[in-house]
Amino acid sequence: MDSDVDYDVFGAACPSRPVLEDVTGRWGSLAMGALADGPMRFNELRRRVEGVSQKMLAQSLQALERDGLVNRQVQSTFPLKVEYSLTPTGEVLAAKLLDLIGYLTGSMPSILDAQQSYDQAHAKT
Amino acid sequence: MDSDVDYDVFGAACPSRPVLEDVTGRWGSLAMGALADGPMRFNELRRRVEGVSQKMLAQSLQALERDGLVNRQVQSTFPLKVEYSLTPTGEVLAAKLLDLIGYLTGSMPSILDAQQSYDQAHAKT
Repeated sequence: MDSDVDYDVFGAACPSRPVLEDVTGRWGSLAMGALADGPMRFNELRRRVEGVSQKMLAQSLQALERDGLVNRQVQSTFPLKVEYSLTPTGEVLAAKLLDLIGYLTGSMPSILDAQQSYDQAHAKT
Repeated sequence: MDSDVDYDVFGAACPSRPVLEDVTGRWGSLAMGALADGPMRFNELRRRVEGVSQKMLAQSLQALERDGLVNRQVQSTFPLKVEYSLTPTGEVLAAKLLDLIGYLTGSMPSILDAQQSYDQAHAKT
């Protein structure tokens, strides 16, 4: 039996859909991308993912930890040090996400041109 | 001048960030993935992207059209036929997205195991 035959993000009830949202969601995607550089503490991550609130970052990391894509490691130092890192599966997904992000940022000049043309065309009518 | 040096999705005000959200957002990502199979009419897309409302699909497609990633073509038949397709840049992004989605769905057995372990560990405490 091929184990991935049963999962389809296009199906409304498929359990893969919420996982895709964890990985590609607004803050989850940036947290995954940031952690591709290596393990980070919460406040480092928060500085890297500009604009994220403490609450939203904590929620995104918790969802990714539950999915087995991010490890949360508490080191018994004083003060306690909590470090986040990608799991092996998380690393592969983060690399694929960064590949997409790299192509997208490289395409920004043409995307901004398209946005401008669109806005001009829709302002006229 | 390297044109992609200036764009960084980690920056709160970077114009690439809303574009990333258009591409990887809940419905935008599924619309892009569906259109990778070829041009589709609105109602075909709506059936393919299970669970999306008419309003959310229309908004997602409009954002992707504005970004120059999706073409909206009105054919002057009766009744009017409106067809959506990916632009060349949209095709590359959709392929990268499907690559990520394919890996994610293939990892679902281990992701579901991780979720179960997490839920058990957090129910005990």
